[in-house]
Amino acid sequence: LILIKPTIEVCLSPALLHTYNLQNKIAVVIDVLRATSTICTALHNGASKIIPVASIDECMAYSIHSDYLLAAERDAKLPDGFVYGNSPKQYNTDKIKNKTIVLTTTNGTKMLHLCLGAEQIVIGSFGNMDALANYLLQQNKPVIMACSAWKDKVNMEDSIMAGGIVHRLKNNFTMACDSARMMEQQYAIAKNNIYEAHRIANHFGRLLDLGAADDLKFCLTENNTPVVPVLQGDSIVNVV
Amino acid sequence: LILIKPTIEVCLSPALLHTYNLQNKIAVVIDVLRATSTICTALHNGASKIIPVASIDECMAYSIHSDYLLAAERDAKLPDGFVYGNSPKQYNTDKIKNKTIVLTTTNGTKMLHLCLGAEQIVIGSFGNMDALANYLLQQNKPVIMACSAWKDKVNMEDSIMAGGIVHRLKNNFTMACDSARMMEQQYAIAKNNIYEAHRIANHFGRLLDLGAADDLKFCLTENNTPVVPVLQGDSIVNVV
Repeated sequence: LILIKPTIEVCLSPALLHTYNLQNKIAVVIDVLRATSTICTALHNGASKIIPVASIDECMAYSIHSDYLLAAERDAKLPDGFVYGNSPKQYNTDKIKNKTIVLTTTNGTKMLHLCLGAEQIVIGSFGNMDALANYLLQQNKPVIMACSAWKDKVNMEDSIMAGGIVHRLKNNFTMACDSARMMEQQYAIAKNNIYEAHRIANHFGRLLDLGAADDLKFCLTENNTPVVPVLQGDSIVNVV
Repeated sequence: LILIKPTIEVCLSPALLHTYNLQNKIAVVIDVLRATSTICTALHNGASKIIPVASIDECMAYSIHSDYLLAAERDAKLPDGFVYGNSPKQYNTDKIKNKTIVLTTTNGTKMLHLCLGAEQIVIGSFGNMDALANYLLQQNKPVIMACSAWKDKVNMEDSIMAGGIVHRLKNNFTMACDSARMMEQQYAIAKNNIYEAHRIANHFGRLLDLGAADDLKFCLTENNTPVVPVLQGDSIVNVV
């Protein structure tokens, strides 16, 4: 009997996705600040599903459904005409219960659409770290952690969150690229205080300037939204 | 009097170069295994200059100069018709003294050509770590560490070497991207034993399989070739 461990890889940016093969793999899309943290928060608070869309126009088109919440973010800000944006705070409430949310963001929904060649797409954030790791262990299939980055530029928060999953799975999976190996070590440095470790991150300063200090605290905390969001058809739903 | 520190950035792959601006910056091209280690070795052993070229054909065309050494590597191997390849061992000898070497490699010379928009191009390897750091301190200009990677895929050895320069310069420069911040930390983990830290690296295994164990030892040793190779016109020369 030979046991072959499934592989785990970390792709640090959409611009590096061509160096990986998505076929027959589970792609975990990560956009810690803030799209995937927001998705986890909404599902944790009982939203029935999230429909991720690429453009503002596509999002607007869903206004024919008067009970849907339309949500958008561009360059970390709320575009004209929208009430719901990309702050998890807006979804951390009972008002979200049983709602369908249509969401478009600068980086996260882009990476999600680029990963459609994978066998399955799952959403990752610090908020669902342990729940996600347990789910991936049960699936026992090759995993690629897909960091959304910032307009293709590698960022700390997505990279380190990816490393946190590698850290949790490394005994049962084979680390199959150098980014996975480096980010596992990077997470090990950061894990005792995820929030403090990110003070030097580029996007930390950008969001602080935009008055999103609460969001930084929330998004850089582990396991506060223990859901497993999976793309099924055109919607993301919680499977645990 | 306001002192403004120059920036230092780390670009982890040619596929990420579009997220950085090269203008008015010194680009340090890194291909630890093995192109830039080989360049440093040849210059340290007295080669007069290295002419980096993009293609095998272009390299062959220099055969009209009977005294030039033509050197090539593709996929970590010696292409047909070449005697000199990409192993620093071949250049760690007096035979190299005063020679002109024409060199084409899979990744390193590609990244060098992509960096031609920078104000100056310098060559980095573990072998010239301290000499390079001192040179950059004296220049006091913005620096971008340009990792050649492996066919666009991020690798440990180039990333950590880049982090080693950030580590040495961080008091006098501003770390201006998350990759610089992460790789500085990554180097700090690895620095007490650079060779051992790379045992898990992807290309370490690949070169071991190709019988290049000596090269791994040599290329993963700091300060054994204390030169500062700078591109001047079409040639790389040592400026210290």
